[in-house]
Amino acid sequence: MRVVKTIPDIRALRQKLNGTVGFVPTMGFLHEGHLALVKRAKVENPTVIVSIYVNPKQFGPKEDFGAYPRDLNRDLELLRRDGVDIVFVPSDDEMYPPEFSSWVDVERVTERLEGAIRPGHFRGVATVVAKLFNIIQPSRAYFGQKDAQQVAVIKRMVADLNMGTEVVVVPTVREGDGLAMSSRNIYLNPRERQAATILFKVLTLARQLRQSGEKDAEKIRRQMTSLIQEEPLAQIDYVSIAHAETLEELNSLDRPAVASLAVRIGKTRLIDNMPLE
Amino acid sequence: MRVVKTIPDIRALRQKLNGTVGFVPTMGFLHEGHLALVKRAKVENPTVIVSIYVNPKQFGPKEDFGAYPRDLNRDLELLRRDGVDIVFVPSDDEMYPPEFSSWVDVERVTERLEGAIRPGHFRGVATVVAKLFNIIQPSRAYFGQKDAQQVAVIKRMVADLNMGTEVVVVPTVREGDGLAMSSRNIYLNPRERQAATILFKVLTLARQLRQSGEKDAEKIRRQMTSLIQEEPLAQIDYVSIAHAETLEELNSLDRPAVASLAVRIGKTRLIDNMPLE
Repeated sequence: MRVVKTIPDIRALRQKLNGTVGFVPTMGFLHEGHLALVKRAKVENPTVIVSIYVNPKQFGPKEDFGAYPRDLNRDLELLRRDGVDIVFVPSDDEMYPPEFSSWVDVERVTERLEGAIRPGHFRGVATVVAKLFNIIQPSRAYFGQKDAQQVAVIKRMVADLNMGTEVVVVPTVREGDGLAMSSRNIYLNPRERQAATILFKVLTLARQLRQSGEKDAEKIRRQMTSLIQEEPLAQIDYVSIAHAETLEELNSLDRPAVASLAVRIGKTRLIDNMPLE
Repeated sequence: MRVVKTIPDIRALRQKLNGTVGFVPTMGFLHEGHLALVKRAKVENPTVIVSIYVNPKQFGPKEDFGAYPRDLNRDLELLRRDGVDIVFVPSDDEMYPPEFSSWVDVERVTERLEGAIRPGHFRGVATVVAKLFNIIQPSRAYFGQKDAQQVAVIKRMVADLNMGTEVVVVPTVREGDGLAMSSRNIYLNPRERQAATILFKVLTLARQLRQSGEKDAEKIRRQMTSLIQEEPLAQIDYVSIAHAETLEELNSLDRPAVASLAVRIGKTRLIDNMPLE
């Protein structure tokens, strides 16, 4: 496994590769969710490249950029074990030199949910993904369904800007009790960790309501909200039943829909979602 | 020469090409300035692709998108004569489908001069160039020095977003009396055509002042302004002595500088510029 730290070096390596390249962009502190992306990429491509980069531009000024968990040595060991070919670990200096001033702005789908609460977040995400795609030139890039809105934004960007990379979405990996894998779960104390299972319970309720024939989105949102309110440690940021591509809130479940929510458990903000079939 | 009208078709053709690809993006109605770009691309690359697309997103609502001159058959004849391999003529429907919502925004360098007077213009330019680069994947792309700020914006975008295309800038081609070649020159009546020579005269004055040792940018701007005011048909939009890369106005000519100006001759808006060495 090659660990590459500069853009010229990864470009030189990339040029020598034959066949398709599968790319998994990450912010490190890897968990089973990331490794599911890597495994899928391994199955589908002769070469797999993983990037580890905690992108400062997608954190707001009051968010957890400084505290975001990092453990490069452990990450590299996990990736080596899973047969990754190249790990790209760029520096802030090279990614964002002082004169940096170009951004990818995706409108509409970025304005709701996470985008409404975290202004500039998806600008940072879209921009860094565009940069990484241009550097790595992947045939396929792998993202987790866990970040459903991120997936919608990246798909929109790739289509609109005619990027030659296929976006592959991999189902959310969950702990035994349903908590979605997230690097931020490490922030939870044991009592909060227990309370955090409320997200999966609420999404499961939404899916059950849908499967039992409920078509009124507002009724489902109301029942989801009531159930979260039974958990004293949970504070709702949003509860959403939205169109899966545009993330516009739905009145009636007559199109592909996704239930999603953001909840604060103590000081930790967790998001999760579930497609409603 | 192949004329290709859809994105899937040009992608398929591109995949079969070996060696470097030189790309000349144009809005058609070609003149000697465009053909100088083509000739340079021919010298430097085994394959040359030209796009002809009047990009609606770079025109303001009150600008001349509808009136912008078009003559596809003549353009194709000129390109065939110059040995172009592929001409890409995309449709608005495919470039900007209804759900289109992603943009490339370059900050700072876009906020001055043309950007200040034509809000959204460089957003449209950067976005369409990013799209075309992603579709065509050129090794080198050729732009005219005539649009100096466009060149600065594209260079900034390519560097910031790590695009793998080299930007080649080709000197402005001028008529015998110094008027820079422009598709918009066709708007000028004979009296205006004569008056339009004022732009080149003013830029030549700026260069002469610089070469005779003048280092005070404001003094040069003032003399340029006075000279334009001697032409009754000319209305000044701006007169600028700016840093060549950032286009920030200079006080002292202690860095690479460019003199540029935008002038209205009757209803026709003309721009021109000259690097000051």
